[in-house]
Amino acid sequence: MSSTRIRHIIILGAGNLAYHLSKAFRKEGLIIDQIYARDADDAANLARQLDVSWCSDINKIKNNADAYFFCLTDKGIAEILAKTSFTDQLLIHLSGSIEMEVFKGKSSNYGVFYPLQTFSKDRELSFRNIPICLEANSPETLKLLEELAYKLSDDVRAIDSAQRAILHIAAVFACNFSNYLFMIAENILKENNIDFKIIAPLIQETAKKAIDIIPSEAQTGPAKRKDIHIINNHLEVLKKYPQYQEIYRLLTERIQDHYTI
Amino acid sequence: MSSTRIRHIIILGAGNLAYHLSKAFRKEGLIIDQIYARDADDAANLARQLDVSWCSDINKIKNNADAYFFCLTDKGIAEILAKTSFTDQLLIHLSGSIEMEVFKGKSSNYGVFYPLQTFSKDRELSFRNIPICLEANSPETLKLLEELAYKLSDDVRAIDSAQRAILHIAAVFACNFSNYLFMIAENILKENNIDFKIIAPLIQETAKKAIDIIPSEAQTGPAKRKDIHIINNHLEVLKKYPQYQEIYRLLTERIQDHYTI
Repeated sequence: MSSTRIRHIIILGAGNLAYHLSKAFRKEGLIIDQIYARDADDAANLARQLDVSWCSDINKIKNNADAYFFCLTDKGIAEILAKTSFTDQLLIHLSGSIEMEVFKGKSSNYGVFYPLQTFSKDRELSFRNIPICLEANSPETLKLLEELAYKLSDDVRAIDSAQRAILHIAAVFACNFSNYLFMIAENILKENNIDFKIIAPLIQETAKKAIDIIPSEAQTGPAKRKDIHIINNHLEVLKKYPQYQEIYRLLTERIQDHYTI
Repeated sequence: MSSTRIRHIIILGAGNLAYHLSKAFRKEGLIIDQIYARDADDAANLARQLDVSWCSDINKIKNNADAYFFCLTDKGIAEILAKTSFTDQLLIHLSGSIEMEVFKGKSSNYGVFYPLQTFSKDRELSFRNIPICLEANSPETLKLLEELAYKLSDDVRAIDSAQRAILHIAAVFACNFSNYLFMIAENILKENNIDFKIIAPLIQETAKKAIDIIPSEAQTGPAKRKDIHIINNHLEVLKKYPQYQEIYRLLTERIQDHYTI
């Protein structure tokens, strides 16, 4: 990098995170030189929204930007690294689960910029209170990443690869899996002609309580109370939904175990 | 009941729900004649906060109130009904999973008043937006229950026993089980010296998204993307936590199945 400041960036990927990140960085005055995505429609679509250029051919990715944000899966990252050459451009991925060293030998500056949040395209979202977990291959690069991160968020932390892996697993339980449980509720209600919105206040309070009190203090329900009669009633009703019955049984056992020990 | 209005009530139970309900009804001008709980300390404690009388002996429960709120498990309810006699006093339970007919033959007026929410004693909470699901043994009794329910909430619905059972199961998934997943995140983070608060914005957004978008549209994560590489990494790390690994594996399979079909 010729300067110690990042101004020109390239976004690799056109998914939910690429979308939100591009918009947020642009708002903060960074210049997006290009959007790359393997799917031309995806690349063109995001580029059009940002009014910047795009490509879907790895060989056409410009190599003179200050920083490259790899908003891609590990396979997508490997594919690009196999076909491009960098010297000291800052290479950054945003994944909870990919090692920073995926960039080793590809540039003299690299790191990780992991925003701990769930992103959906059709949902506006401020980065301001999203924790951004940074890792870099040198103190100087960490400093550059910190400057970038503080443009978007007030909560910036240095987190190494091992801790980031743990964070990502915790996020899968707390976000992806709990959303799946909400989806089970949605499906059971729908099949019985009950509007999902009836449990909205419950979901809201469950999240608020977990945050305000801490989950281990907030637990309630028949499993914790070991109310065998209710549990058996529920398992009986769930015979119609064997795939949900198995989940009910496992989670109930685990909660009972937790409050026995 | 001599009047068509409920004024004097007795609260049976001294748990989280009894606590919140007593406070809310009192604020609305109802007169709490007595608190009963099997545990004298619990009964005395709640009664002291409300400055009302209490008993821990079933035989001392006054029999001249207008309505009796059974904030108890099915066993607790059965125990009281076995030892008391009512004529037309309004008997009401607040459980998602107990049939209304538990009161059959015990009084000529009975019903269910099920607030769809999670209650913790040390947490203030307004009933105003909590859905209250009512069921009654006659249209007249339903009307009485509606009057009571609208004192507390703007969202009052008639829901029969079968639908209420479904609602309760949905609530167990959406609240009790998702809180347990938050607890797994809490434990994994704690064991790795990471502050649980780092995932607070994620939990908040997960709940908001599920409500705003609907869970089936809000799903994200490696299981949905079928990112086998990340899933295997996570399962590898979770070898240290076999009880969590099993849950990770089951929920991941189910999410993958869901997005395959």
